[in-house]
Order: sequence, then structure tokens, then C-alpha cells
Amino acid sequence: MNNHKIELQVPVQTGIILPEPTLRRLPWYLAYIDILYAQGTGHVSSTQISRALNVDASQIAKDLSFLSIKGKTRIGYDVAQLRDILADFLGFRVSHKALVIGAGSLGRALMCDTGLSTYGLDIAAALDIDTALVGTEVNGRPICHIDDIEEVAQTTGAVIAILTVPFEVAQEAADIAISAGIRAIWNFTPYRVKTAEGIVMANTSIYAHLAMIYNRLENLNR
Amino acid sequence: MNNHKIELQVPVQTGIILPEPTLRRLPWYLAYIDILYAQGTGHVSSTQISRALNVDASQIAKDLSFLSIKGKTRIGYDVAQLRDILADFLGFRVSHKALVIGAGSLGRALMCDTGLSTYGLDIAAALDIDTALVGTEVNGRPICHIDDIEEVAQTTGAVIAILTVPFEVAQEAADIAISAGIRAIWNFTPYRVKTAEGIVMANTSIYAHLAMIYNRLENLNR
Repeated sequence: MNNHKIELQVPVQTGIILPEPTLRRLPWYLAYIDILYAQGTGHVSSTQISRALNVDASQIAKDLSFLSIKGKTRIGYDVAQLRDILADFLGFRVSHKALVIGAGSLGRALMCDTGLSTYGLDIAAALDIDTALVGTEVNGRPICHIDDIEEVAQTTGAVIAILTVPFEVAQEAADIAISAGIRAIWNFTPYRVKTAEGIVMANTSIYAHLAMIYNRLENLNR
Repeated sequence: MNNHKIELQVPVQTGIILPEPTLRRLPWYLAYIDILYAQGTGHVSSTQISRALNVDASQIAKDLSFLSIKGKTRIGYDVAQLRDILADFLGFRVSHKALVIGAGSLGRALMCDTGLSTYGLDIAAALDIDTALVGTEVNGRPICHIDDIEEVAQTTGAVIAILTVPFEVAQEAADIAISAGIRAIWNFTPYRVKTAEGIVMANTSIYAHLAMIYNRLENLNR
């Protein structure tokens, strides 16, 4: 009898269009699994994840079914394996080049944030129209003139644009980025940017979240 | 005949729990209306907003029906009035005091962001455990020790906590904030924080958006 367990290297399933709610939940699981991993926990069940995160256990099992990982009955998932597969699956361990468009306070802040690089985002440069900023650097990355965006995108290989311009010019800036070869727009402005089919669009609606907080707080006070 | 129009001061409807999708869309409308206002446009129809933002016109009319404003047939909404009512309704014109918990790169960045104050958020102070940071200032606001949070919350009148700590301590930090009298948690960490009933919780899931962008981009490339 062979006592050596055969380690099956299950390939990560890529190219699956995941439902947005699943994509929202998977990073929660990863954050929790990261904590367990740091604590030296060996296995975790979906019931345990469920209790910790207030997510239905059957939902967790369903979300994790998109990954090539199976939990063992009464033991659960291998923490280290689940952590690796989740991080790989979510694309957090590959470097994705991005450009910041609009080197104002938010744009510069994102360039300095250490969290983004941990999650696979490498901001290679910023673009701006302000000639006083062009030629300077933020966190070791150059600020270039928006007119040079096509060259900057090609040189850096960036396909993601982080939109942190004043909202009045958000649509125009997005159009320029897409003409320069950008394929994904991460919009931090409150303006709803329109893009053509085939362009990835993600809105981080900071101000909508503020509106929600204000509205719910006011309601609490009644 | 009286040529002076009577300006009816319609009271802003507050205390309405708005559906989240409506709360997400209203700031889009406001951003667009702001642009029209700056251009000197007098009136706007829901059809026009619809075309500009790719939102169904009937949806826009429905969303705006939560506000005390009526569009006129064939003329539409008065731009200046709609702008005022929307901004008031969303709470963007009242100062809401907040505390940053975790004065790392993201926390400090939010303290420096000029956009937040434009939308009614006044970050009064930051809390941290790092004694090297405690006693210093960011953008004129003090960094205090987390142990003093109750006093800081009371002095500043802050009821909103912006959570920018390492995700490993997100739950603990949220619990401390709530014990200190905080009533709304704006969570920027990837950890899903659990809170008791009656606490407002908003998640700005930056890393989930990154995961979505990566997933969709990879799918484009196939």
C-alpha cells in the first residue's frame, strides 16, 4: 500500500464569467481564510465560514463550487489550499498594470495605497492635463500628459484605467482612455460613464455609499 | 393679474428608507444635473437624463418620485431646483462628522480627499494604535490613540467611522467604535464585518471590484 498521498494539481478554472454577487463574496472568504491561515488553522468548514461572515452556508458551498476545490465531509476545506486557489482565482497574485487618470487627491492617494499592489494592481503611471504636475512623480511613478496616454499605455502594457478626474470630464477622459487601448475603466467619479460593448466597467460609488449612510442614519434617528 | 410667481418651498422628504438601487442612481443624476446647471441649462426631461446615463426613463421618473419635485409636461424638470432638492435629499449639504479608524495609507488619503467634504463628510480625527502617529496631524486633523475613541467621538460629535485598518483587525476595530457610540461603519477593508441590528453598515469593496475587473478582462481575452 502506498502511504504517499498523490497531490493532484488541479488547474485553476479561469475564463469563467462569475456572477457579480459571487465575485463580491469571494474576497470576504479570502480575507477570513487569510486570518485562519495566519493562525495556523488546518481546515475550515462552510458552516464555520458561514458563522464568521453571516453568509448562508449553502451559498458559500455554491460560491466555492466555481473553484476546483472540494471540502471533505466532517473536515471541511484545507485552509492553505483554499487560500491559494482563491487568491489565484481572483487574480490577486498576477500583476495587472493600470493607469490613473486624474492625479488629484484621490488619484494620488490610490497611487500611494499599499493595499492595491497586494491585490495585484500595479499603477504604472498617472495622466493629467495640469502641466505643473506633468513630469513629477508620485510614489516613484511618473505623471504624464494626457496627450501621451497611448504611448504610456503601450509602454507600460496597461489595460486598466482608474478614473479619478473631476466628474464633469469623466466621460471625455474615459473616451480618451478607450481610444488609447484601455479595456477596463474603474470609475471613482459619481458620473455614470457610458462605454461601448466589450469594455469592462466597474463603478466604485463612494458618494452613493455616503448617500446611503446618511439616509440610513437619519432613519435610525427617527 | 399677479406676475410674481409664488415660490413654493416644498419641504425635503427626509426619513424615507430609500431602496439601495435608487440611492445608487440618485448621485448619478445629481452629477449630470450639476453639469447641466454649470452649462446654464434651464430644464431637463427624464428622457434626456435617460439618454445621457443609459438608465431607463421610467426608472428615472420612479426614482425622482421619492423627491418632492414634479417635472412639467414637455418641459421637464427645473435644473436648478432639481439640483438643490437632490443634493439636500442625499444629505450632501449637511456636515456629517466622521472618524477614520486606521491612519495607514488609505485612511490618510481619505483625510486628504477634497471630494468627501464636498459631499458632506467632515473627517474630524483619526484613531490609530501606532504611538509614532498619535499626536501628529493629517490635513489639519489630529491622529488620536484608539483608547481615546469614546472621548474623541463625544468631543467631535462623530457617529460615522471609516474603517481603514488591516483587515485582520477589522471586526475588533468596528466593535470598539460601536462601543464608543459610533452608529455607522463605512468599511473599506475586504473583511465582512458583523454588526448588531441598528448599526448602519456600508461596504466599499475595492478589492471585490478589482476581482471583477480581472475576471471580466480575462474573459474578454478569450
